[in-house]
Amino acid sequence: MTDAQIKQYMQRAIKVAEKARGKCSPNPFVGSVIVKNNQVISEGWTLEYGSDHSEIQALKKAGKKAKDATLFVTLEPCSHYGKTPPCAQAIIDAGIKEVYIGIYDPNPLVKGKGIAMLKEAGIDVHYGFLEEKIRTQLECYLCYIQKERPFVTLKTALTLDGKYAAEDGTAHWITGKKAREYAHQLRSENDVVLTGIMTILFDDPRLNVRLPGNYKQPLRVVLDPYLKIPVLSYFVSISAKFPGMVITSPDNLQTDKADILRQKGVKIEALETKDGHFNLHEVLNLLYKMNYYSVLLETGSGIAEAFLKEELIDKIIFIYGAKILGGTKSPLPNLGIESIYKALYIWKTSCRKIENDVVVTAYPVYHI
Amino acid sequence: MTDAQIKQYMQRAIKVAEKARGKCSPNPFVGSVIVKNNQVISEGWTLEYGSDHSEIQALKKAGKKAKDATLFVTLEPCSHYGKTPPCAQAIIDAGIKEVYIGIYDPNPLVKGKGIAMLKEAGIDVHYGFLEEKIRTQLECYLCYIQKERPFVTLKTALTLDGKYAAEDGTAHWITGKKAREYAHQLRSENDVVLTGIMTILFDDPRLNVRLPGNYKQPLRVVLDPYLKIPVLSYFVSISAKFPGMVITSPDNLQTDKADILRQKGVKIEALETKDGHFNLHEVLNLLYKMNYYSVLLETGSGIAEAFLKEELIDKIIFIYGAKILGGTKSPLPNLGIESIYKALYIWKTSCRKIENDVVVTAYPVYHI
Repeated sequence: MTDAQIKQYMQRAIKVAEKARGKCSPNPFVGSVIVKNNQVISEGWTLEYGSDHSEIQALKKAGKKAKDATLFVTLEPCSHYGKTPPCAQAIIDAGIKEVYIGIYDPNPLVKGKGIAMLKEAGIDVHYGFLEEKIRTQLECYLCYIQKERPFVTLKTALTLDGKYAAEDGTAHWITGKKAREYAHQLRSENDVVLTGIMTILFDDPRLNVRLPGNYKQPLRVVLDPYLKIPVLSYFVSISAKFPGMVITSPDNLQTDKADILRQKGVKIEALETKDGHFNLHEVLNLLYKMNYYSVLLETGSGIAEAFLKEELIDKIIFIYGAKILGGTKSPLPNLGIESIYKALYIWKTSCRKIENDVVVTAYPVYHI
Repeated sequence: MTDAQIKQYMQRAIKVAEKARGKCSPNPFVGSVIVKNNQVISEGWTLEYGSDHSEIQALKKAGKKAKDATLFVTLEPCSHYGKTPPCAQAIIDAGIKEVYIGIYDPNPLVKGKGIAMLKEAGIDVHYGFLEEKIRTQLECYLCYIQKERPFVTLKTALTLDGKYAAEDGTAHWITGKKAREYAHQLRSENDVVLTGIMTILFDDPRLNVRLPGNYKQPLRVVLDPYLKIPVLSYFVSISAKFPGMVITSPDNLQTDKADILRQKGVKIEALETKDGHFNLHEVLNLLYKMNYYSVLLETGSGIAEAFLKEELIDKIIFIYGAKILGGTKSPLPNLGIESIYKALYIWKTSCRKIENDVVVTAYPVYHI
């Protein structure tokens, strides 16, 4: 196999994995490609949680042809019994001769054991291909495993001159139709969409995915220390159908208000507060323990600033609407950076157009 | 000639024209490609003002081979004696058989006469190819001819969250090295770089092009109603070498200060002021009469807002530095748009990365 061929097939596995993005959580979305005589004979991607991993899907499709074939897989095959039997064993059983693995799996349950199992069975195993690309693709999963907290993305819609609203507060809409659809898609790709009570009170958002077709709905979460969320808010009213959770202080757990919310389908969790604020590390830890890998922040400036100050935002998606508003409605007015010498740096930016709007994806660098 | 071939050669002419961008003003920068037997035999682009137009350069390079060949040119060949003889005549004399013209030239001195001249000589003439692309490429020239004023570009450097400086006013640097080089290149590509006296007083910029190699220097212009510009400013100190002009009110023309500035090489022009402000239409008209096609605004918010309110900004180049600053330093705080329903719309956006910074080019739409 030449370097160019390896790259080509791994690229294909990366592309195939995208079919599973936002659809197999809390499993990482992985892609597999089986090649024989320099021809792709099958492809697989992670199916919904509890169903087949990508390798199994590809092996099933290949059937008997898998014997003596070469497998390309973006993430190290698992070696443990989880919801499904270990993929490494299935690869061995199918008679695969050679395996190319994009990145190794830092999950303590795998962590090289998948590779070892394949090698012990006499399979020719290679790993470390297109690693940066795959690490970016699996950034939520890797954060969850390595930092033991969900990956946090801040989404913000601004005009090109950096305003989130006009002077009178109107903001519908900063971005165009396709960009707003993209924002819904982002909700679907994340396990959790999180906002603060002020956003609920001011904007009354539903925070669910409203797109034609069948999309995974995220858990909708509100940080609400004093349990101020209106029973008649959109957030609550759709909670029977779309999962919703309120995090409040322990004082509010046994109140009538809490009972009413529960009756309407809202889950209520409690965390200690200090001066009316949650510890955001504890918020993320709560979500981590609930097995959520990714959190999309759709918050006002206060919570966004608090997450940034705690260095808890992993990625920012700026959606710049093709408009100019002028004025003073700045997204992070109290971030507390006094001088350019203390600016928060960004790297790995990427940009693309959606209609006339512009989407910039950016990764903060907290320590240079 | 197939449609695909025509497109291909016109595309090449557009690309060739780029070699002349910022180098042949006040001539429009045009590209020519001569094709024979489906092979490119020569290319030409507009040389410096007073020297050959693109067609002539291409014809000279082709020599006798030009006979019976096909010419592709982005703009209608001229038909009049200016600094140089008419290109249309040269095309006829060279024996060119067929001519493909991107767009016709709205310049009253040409305006179809070039096409007519070629047709009368029996040449097969076609026009109207890749028009939108060429109109964008020649936007400054077309604005000058059609609106009888220079094309105005606002350049603004912001952090990704839309700030032009940190809270303490520090702003060196918002953008990275390559993006700042691009900003210098923009100066070179424009005939005029214009700023206000406040920017001179606060930032003391030189406004010239400082890049390795040989770049055209723009005319540097300051709007300075009360002639406050410091004699010791960088702007003045380099005026012997880099053209600089101050526009002030007529009261200041015959002052000692004005004399000192003139001695230092600064050109001084006068325009009436009202409440301490110039009429920006008159400012542009002054530059129009001086034969300047393009103005790059490097101003603070006051002048940028004034140009926008007069609907005199044709294009905005946002350079987003890969940083976050937060705070309140907004670029257009007093633009006067109260509601999202009155937002200034943008179209024809494009975006690209320079290192980790992002450049967005945007065209305001004043009337929908």
